[in-house]
Amino acid sequence: MRTYPECYECVLRQFTSELDLINLDLETQTLMVKEALVLLGEARGSATPPDLYGQLHSMLRDNIGDIDAYVESKRKSHQLAMGYQEALRGLIGNGPDKFEQGIKVSAAGNIIDVLYAREYNLWDEVESSVNQDLLGGGLSAFQQKISKAPYLLYLADNVGETIFDKVFIETLNIPVKYGVKGGPILNDATLEDARSAGIDQIAEIVETGSRSPGTPLDQCTNDFRRLFDESPLVLAKGQANYETLDDGGDKIFFLLRLKCPLISREIGFPHGSLVLKQGLPLN
Amino acid sequence: MRTYPECYECVLRQFTSELDLINLDLETQTLMVKEALVLLGEARGSATPPDLYGQLHSMLRDNIGDIDAYVESKRKSHQLAMGYQEALRGLIGNGPDKFEQGIKVSAAGNIIDVLYAREYNLWDEVESSVNQDLLGGGLSAFQQKISKAPYLLYLADNVGETIFDKVFIETLNIPVKYGVKGGPILNDATLEDARSAGIDQIAEIVETGSRSPGTPLDQCTNDFRRLFDESPLVLAKGQANYETLDDGGDKIFFLLRLKCPLISREIGFPHGSLVLKQGLPLN
Repeated sequence: MRTYPECYECVLRQFTSELDLINLDLETQTLMVKEALVLLGEARGSATPPDLYGQLHSMLRDNIGDIDAYVESKRKSHQLAMGYQEALRGLIGNGPDKFEQGIKVSAAGNIIDVLYAREYNLWDEVESSVNQDLLGGGLSAFQQKISKAPYLLYLADNVGETIFDKVFIETLNIPVKYGVKGGPILNDATLEDARSAGIDQIAEIVETGSRSPGTPLDQCTNDFRRLFDESPLVLAKGQANYETLDDGGDKIFFLLRLKCPLISREIGFPHGSLVLKQGLPLN
Repeated sequence: MRTYPECYECVLRQFTSELDLINLDLETQTLMVKEALVLLGEARGSATPPDLYGQLHSMLRDNIGDIDAYVESKRKSHQLAMGYQEALRGLIGNGPDKFEQGIKVSAAGNIIDVLYAREYNLWDEVESSVNQDLLGGGLSAFQQKISKAPYLLYLADNVGETIFDKVFIETLNIPVKYGVKGGPILNDATLEDARSAGIDQIAEIVETGSRSPGTPLDQCTNDFRRLFDESPLVLAKGQANYETLDDGGDKIFFLLRLKCPLISREIGFPHGSLVLKQGLPLN
C-alpha cells in the first residue's frame, strides 16, 4: 500500500509510544525521535508504513540494543486469549457454517492490538465481531481454493491472535505453514510466541526473517521468499500484511479488521468491519 | 516550554491537518510532509513546539505561497462568537465577582480551537467552563497588579476567542494593548481579525510580527520586543503563549484552558481546567 501523508504521523506516534515503554531518559528518547524524523523524511517514496516502522525499529536496535518493549503486553494478550481457548472452540462449533464461523473467529482475534485500544473487554468484542457480516466477498473463492490446495501459508499477526488462529487451523483439513516474524517487532508473533500458543502442534511454523510489521518480501529470507513464491494459497492476517502484500496477487486472501481510516477507504468498508478480501491478479 | 518526545508527532499532525485543508495534490502533500519531517528532525533542541510549527509554516509558504488554510474556519468561529456577544456580557454582569467572572469568560473563549475539537456546542461549553473553579492561584496577584499598572499587554490567541476577550476588556479600568500575530497562522487572530471583532474600539492593537503560534520573542519585531520588555503586566492567552513565554518572568499571567496532557502535567491540573497562573520570577 502507498504511504499517505497522514501515515507518517501515525508511524511516528507508534514509535513514540514504543519509546515510552522502554526505560530511557528524556534526552535519549528525544534523540531517537529526532533520528526517526530524519529517517522518515529521507525514506524512499515507495516504502510502505510497515517498512518505515521496520526502519525506525532497526535504528532503535542499533542505538540502544534489541529490547522487546512489548514483552509484558504480549504476555498479557497471550494469557487473556489462552483463557478463552475453549470458549472459542465452542463458538466455532456452534456456528451455522463452521468454516465461515472459524474465519470470523480468527478475524475477531485481530482486535488484540495494543496500538488500537489498550483496554477492551475481549469476549464482548469477540462475540459482537463474530455476529458481524464478513465483508470483502472473498469467502467462496477462499473456500474453493482451500479445498484443492496442497497446503495453506498462513501469515500471522499479533500475539494473542495466535490462539484465535489456532482454533481455526484445528478445523482445517489441510496442512498449514504458519509464518511469523524473524524477531520481536511491536506485539507481532515470533517463533517463540507461536510455540507458546501451541501452534507447533498443529502447523509448521516458518519465520519470514523480517523484523518489520507485515511481510515486506524484500526483507524476508531467501528461504521464506521461495516458500511464498511456491505457495498456491496465502491467508494474510491483519492490516500490516495488507499494507505490505496488497500487490502480491490473487493467491493471497487478506483477513483483517479495519482499524485505520485510510485502509478502510482503500478497501471500501466502514471502520471496524471484518473483511476477507482476495488480492488482485498480478498483471 | 521544552519540546517533549511526544510533541513532534503532535506538531506533525497539526501540519498534516493544515495540508489537508489546502487544495494540494497527493504528491505535493507528501513532499511537504517529508520536508517537514526533515526540518523537525534537524531543528535545534531548544525550539518550542510553536517555534517548530512556525518553521513548518514558513517552509510551506516558501513552497506553495501564503495560503490561509483556516480562513473559513476562522470566519465560522467569529460569527458563532459574535452571536453570543450580548449573552457573554450578561454572563459577566451576573457573576458574584465581576472581575473573576470576566477572566473566566475570557478563558472560556479558549475552547474555540479547531485543533482541539471541530464540533462542540459552544454555549454549553462556555457555561460549564464559567461554572468551573479558576485554578492556578494567580487571581489575587493579577488583581493587585492590574489595579496599579499603567496599561495591560494582552496577548491574543484564536479568532472567536477575540470576542470573549473584548467583553472582558470592556470591564477593565485600564488601557489595553492587544497583541496579535504578524500574519495568518493556524486560527490565531491577526490585525484584521481583531479589527473585525471590534477590539480596535476598546484597545490599541499591536502586532507581534511573528507568524508562529504563541509569542516567540526572538521572532517578533524590535518594536514589539521593546513593548514587551517595557510592559509591567502581561496577560497571555492560550497554550501556545504558555509554551513560548513560560520562562518570561512573573509579570506574565497565563490564562488558558488545559488541552494538552504534557502542559497539564507541567502546570499540575487536570485536562480541561481553566487556569490563571503567574509566571516564575526571572533568575
